[in-house]
Amino acid sequence: MIRLYNCKVLTLDGNFEVLKDYEVWVKEGKIFYVGKKRNDIENFDFEREIDCCKNLVMPGFKNAHTHSPMTFLRSYADDLPLDKWLNEAVFPMERKLSEEMGLWFSYLAILEYLESGITSIFDMYFLQNSVAKAIKDTGFSGVLCGAVNNFVSSVEEMEEMFKKYNNFDEKISYKMGFHAEYTTSLEILKKIALLTKKYNVGIATHCSETKKEVEECISRYNKTPVELFLELGLLENNAVLFHCNYLSEKDMEIIKEKNVFVVTNPGSNCKLASGIAEIKKMVEMGIKVAIGTDGPASNNSLNIFKEMYLTSVLQKVKNKDASAIKPESVIEMACVNGAKALGIDSDCIKEGKNADLIIIDLKKPNMQPINSIVKNIVYSGSVANVSLTMVRGKILYEKGKYNIGIEPEIIYKKCNDFMESIKN
Amino acid sequence: MIRLYNCKVLTLDGNFEVLKDYEVWVKEGKIFYVGKKRNDIENFDFEREIDCCKNLVMPGFKNAHTHSPMTFLRSYADDLPLDKWLNEAVFPMERKLSEEMGLWFSYLAILEYLESGITSIFDMYFLQNSVAKAIKDTGFSGVLCGAVNNFVSSVEEMEEMFKKYNNFDEKISYKMGFHAEYTTSLEILKKIALLTKKYNVGIATHCSETKKEVEECISRYNKTPVELFLELGLLENNAVLFHCNYLSEKDMEIIKEKNVFVVTNPGSNCKLASGIAEIKKMVEMGIKVAIGTDGPASNNSLNIFKEMYLTSVLQKVKNKDASAIKPESVIEMACVNGAKALGIDSDCIKEGKNADLIIIDLKKPNMQPINSIVKNIVYSGSVANVSLTMVRGKILYEKGKYNIGIEPEIIYKKCNDFMESIKN
Repeated sequence: MIRLYNCKVLTLDGNFEVLKDYEVWVKEGKIFYVGKKRNDIENFDFEREIDCCKNLVMPGFKNAHTHSPMTFLRSYADDLPLDKWLNEAVFPMERKLSEEMGLWFSYLAILEYLESGITSIFDMYFLQNSVAKAIKDTGFSGVLCGAVNNFVSSVEEMEEMFKKYNNFDEKISYKMGFHAEYTTSLEILKKIALLTKKYNVGIATHCSETKKEVEECISRYNKTPVELFLELGLLENNAVLFHCNYLSEKDMEIIKEKNVFVVTNPGSNCKLASGIAEIKKMVEMGIKVAIGTDGPASNNSLNIFKEMYLTSVLQKVKNKDASAIKPESVIEMACVNGAKALGIDSDCIKEGKNADLIIIDLKKPNMQPINSIVKNIVYSGSVANVSLTMVRGKILYEKGKYNIGIEPEIIYKKCNDFMESIKN
Repeated sequence: MIRLYNCKVLTLDGNFEVLKDYEVWVKEGKIFYVGKKRNDIENFDFEREIDCCKNLVMPGFKNAHTHSPMTFLRSYADDLPLDKWLNEAVFPMERKLSEEMGLWFSYLAILEYLESGITSIFDMYFLQNSVAKAIKDTGFSGVLCGAVNNFVSSVEEMEEMFKKYNNFDEKISYKMGFHAEYTTSLEILKKIALLTKKYNVGIATHCSETKKEVEECISRYNKTPVELFLELGLLENNAVLFHCNYLSEKDMEIIKEKNVFVVTNPGSNCKLASGIAEIKKMVEMGIKVAIGTDGPASNNSLNIFKEMYLTSVLQKVKNKDASAIKPESVIEMACVNGAKALGIDSDCIKEGKNADLIIIDLKKPNMQPINSIVKNIVYSGSVANVSLTMVRGKILYEKGKYNIGIEPEIIYKKCNDFMESIKN
């Protein structure tokens, strides 16, 4: 058992209160106890007791949309709009990416997730064997999802992956998914719908990321992507839609009605000049929004603090309303809604929940004075504030050091060597 | 003399090339040598030799618009538009702020600047004695500017401050300035114009931050703020205008013609829902743009990486152009143009220039693989990458530790105690 004591705790268990002089005990990957110091403490053995020095313990952040192996294209293909970026820069390079490379670039991504206080990811990529192995090797956690489209993977392969990776590692699950409407034929979409029905599961996909995508879908089907997915039965069982920058009123009503999760990716959407999603409106309608970084080729980081800030301030400037989106709502998106979109029991710090938690170092200038810890996290927080990241009870990152079984320097060397080998 | 060796160096001396296997030597606050390892190295004595481990040495960032003592209102007054924020939240609290408090809250800001790789600031506030003392005490550097308006300070006081703080400390200078057109009467503006003529110096002021401000100025004077300042002779000698979110075509032509510096503050402008400046257009016109955080009450951090990212991606999404603003241009704004707006000789790493420099740790996951160092800094960089900050040859921050003569913990305690004493 690990004992965290002398903590402030933001449990996120139904409220945003910061509890003082609290303890959090962790056993076998779960939260064992949250509360004041116990009188019966002498009855317990601890493998480690950590003095949190009045710093904040809170649930880890969930990165609800990412493509981990795409670290290989960080700062390689930039300053292009989405379609050119995909077709001219990303796709040709991806054809050179082996599973071995995908593994090492996923290790690299995991280093960055842990530094940013991210305890779990929702990862879509065509090299899911690589991502799964990286997650398992390092002790990280994540949900993999299919990326079926007209060019890569097939519905049959996805069914195999679905069976394999839902019985592979307790920290990994697999959801069905396809890349996007504009890269996936109606025939394939219908096959995916049948498969989800067979297993009674939801899908994940990129949706309405650009204006062009929506316009082309309307000209193809006389329907928006959301309307098309609804008609095909693809929005059942808590589907997850990434981006959603161009939703109609009707789309939003469908999403609300079907309990679909929207994952917003403000950094990537701004950098690719795709647009800014109507998050304020969605939150007001009661749509569950989670936050993702998208891949490091389009963001270009895997820094959830940047995304939380952007989620907040872009809504303020877009809506010309400085009160748009409360900071509490942003924290809820990044921690609670993220967990729900991923389908993992890590939404809050409560006995029995997964011990996916982080320590935020409040003794840094950007966190002082302590007028409001929640506001500080959203409005002035940075990765430098994350002093510990624990995934399923294991401390994988602590004060700049990693405990994932592989030295960062080796990962950097491998990644740079691979990159040299595939450039030009 | 301090010797940095085994470095990559981004000198910014006319280009963006990253030089490898370079050394930077620093003596008496200046760059003494930049180049390959010297054959005559045995002739020199070094008080310290730092192995940079192939990490990057580059000029420090300049925060060209800030209000340091406003750290006291971080996460205190949020989610309000500019006019309400100022009148209902900021001004009443500022009336309670003593010079002693201003000093400690400035120390706090300096901790955050150093952590973010900021080596110099352009600071406007009504407590300039506090800011000046904090800069002097800590070994930091900065340009103070007047904040004359109808309520606080006077032109006579500003003249005294101008004389005092241009002969106070070699790392401090003082520029004339006023808060904004909308808070400063025509009579005062005219007196300031006379004073700047007497000393042959430029002014600094908030300008065209909100649409309302511009509209009210037009209804008052039948001129935009920029047109008014031009007519009053307030744009001579490299004036510096903060924000500039609502410039007309004519305003921009005037700014270009008069060699005025524009300082953009994207975080604050989004958070207060003020708007997004036309930076792409300004850059294309050849206007010199620098970057500032604005104060920590409206941003809420003093993190230049956040501002660089926002400067870039907001232009992309605003202009629907993923190629808007090159990353090189953003680095130039934050380092080179910042130095020029401040009037300090710290724009690049070159023999004889001020030794205001930083080390960027490339051995962090967000900087890997190294496809492009310049892009990495702008698109994925974070404060966690700053491993050393040197101001005028003195190392004030190194690997998370400060060397400013005061312990951070003491600053945090003082600041929280002061805040408790003035709340409610």
